[in-house]
Amino acid sequence: MRFVTFIQNNKEKVGVHVDNDLILDLSLIDGIKSSANMLEFISGFNQEILEIINWFLEEENTSSYIKAEDIKVISPIPKPLRNIICLGLNYHDHVLESQQFKGNNFTIPDAPVYFSKMAAYSIGSGEEIISYKELTNQLDYEVELAVIIGKDGSNIPIERADEYIFGYSILNDVTARDLQKKHTQWLKGKSLDTFSVLGPCITHKSAIPFPLQLNLETTVNGELRQSSNTNKLIFDIPHIINDLSKGITLKAGDIIATGTPAGVGMGFQPPKFLKSGDIISCTIEKIGTLTNTVK
Amino acid sequence: MRFVTFIQNNKEKVGVHVDNDLILDLSLIDGIKSSANMLEFISGFNQEILEIINWFLEEENTSSYIKAEDIKVISPIPKPLRNIICLGLNYHDHVLESQQFKGNNFTIPDAPVYFSKMAAYSIGSGEEIISYKELTNQLDYEVELAVIIGKDGSNIPIERADEYIFGYSILNDVTARDLQKKHTQWLKGKSLDTFSVLGPCITHKSAIPFPLQLNLETTVNGELRQSSNTNKLIFDIPHIINDLSKGITLKAGDIIATGTPAGVGMGFQPPKFLKSGDIISCTIEKIGTLTNTVK
Repeated sequence: MRFVTFIQNNKEKVGVHVDNDLILDLSLIDGIKSSANMLEFISGFNQEILEIINWFLEEENTSSYIKAEDIKVISPIPKPLRNIICLGLNYHDHVLESQQFKGNNFTIPDAPVYFSKMAAYSIGSGEEIISYKELTNQLDYEVELAVIIGKDGSNIPIERADEYIFGYSILNDVTARDLQKKHTQWLKGKSLDTFSVLGPCITHKSAIPFPLQLNLETTVNGELRQSSNTNKLIFDIPHIINDLSKGITLKAGDIIATGTPAGVGMGFQPPKFLKSGDIISCTIEKIGTLTNTVK
Repeated sequence: MRFVTFIQNNKEKVGVHVDNDLILDLSLIDGIKSSANMLEFISGFNQEILEIINWFLEEENTSSYIKAEDIKVISPIPKPLRNIICLGLNYHDHVLESQQFKGNNFTIPDAPVYFSKMAAYSIGSGEEIISYKELTNQLDYEVELAVIIGKDGSNIPIERADEYIFGYSILNDVTARDLQKKHTQWLKGKSLDTFSVLGPCITHKSAIPFPLQLNLETTVNGELRQSSNTNKLIFDIPHIINDLSKGITLKAGDIIATGTPAGVGMGFQPPKFLKSGDIISCTIEKIGTLTNTVK
């Protein structure tokens, strides 16, 4: 089940992707409390709602379907609750390629490397990434599996991590490498407006059981750049949720980006940074493809 | 003018500190649109509201005054809009003391070092800081001048930085040094629940003109530990607002903590980390004192 946020008549709504032409508009379904947005929907979500939606999908009850061409799908969480929580250096091959980039002194981490990405808003598939030519000439992409937290919790045991997950999405963790390095801590280089690219949907966890083995890849102008599998994460999702939540209350709607594999722009010799007009597509199995053009 | 958030009959309200015994309850003043909380108040604030409040204070119009003993002052922004934006290594003497702490390789920065502090909630003066004995044995304090942003903006020129400030508060940037180092990026060591200590008020900028020259200090159990002046910031406030806002939209209500001077626990030989029962008081001239006990 793939949840989407869409705009219909200037109103933000939550729906379910049926196929490329159809969306199930959840606001039209009796028995589902209408949610103002995805964050509210996630907070109120439960097994009963899942079953109601499944029934509608199985019955192909088209009275609640709307045509995809009549609406605009945006980022599933256009206004994140707070900064996106990100992991750095969480695939071996990405650590190795990063070491080769001038001046980096990264090593395989002994503990998860957590940082955050300011995201007053996130952009969805089809929206433009600003290139900020006056601020950076090392604009880079990073495909990442994003975990969407489903309920509040702290000190979450590894074996109960699954209970705190709502689903999964794709984050393109757009980064200005020169700013990331200049300010030593990564916040600024990760946080420029339009650098949080999320979508195209949130796939409910029921469709992706543990352990996650999802192919993920990035193409730039059709050229394959990143290609890996989430089973190569150094710190896997249960470990991350357990470790991060020690002493920190995770909130329903929090977005945790789990790190990127090798093949980012700075990993090539010479580097292949992004420029205006480039088209980046990030794909993760069972979630979809997030495509954006650099402005 | 010192704005406070307080709880009266389980309701959160915004007021003005008149003296230690009296609070002006802004919800009782005609002409001021009632705000649900400080974030709404900041977003709607303007010169006219400032003048109305000043008139009430000058007239000593006591019909809108309430006794401090009847209410509970809490953090001025108990639920921050998003992560607190922090600067590291922004006083020379603190960089020098940090270098002496084992394994740190900090140098005087060429550019501001930005990181963030997750703060689903912040605690105010009088509330307890959790010591997390199972997670850290290097619990530390950091007094910091916090800038509260007054209106949304990006690419803010240095000479217009003042327009985007609402006022100033004190942040005790409580830190688990071992977690800060273990995870290399600082997010986790800065973000445990109760590590964001803010208050006791927000002093409106009209009371503190540029350039800021405010004494700031910390005592632990009455022993003076930190004592400096905000005129020693390596990157001053107009510079920070200008630099940070390049490509990033700052939001009304954002909290920017400007860094801490020398005298933190890790700066002593041997280090003086916090333990249960310690009482920490952070004071900044023209703002007040933020006092908390370690649980």
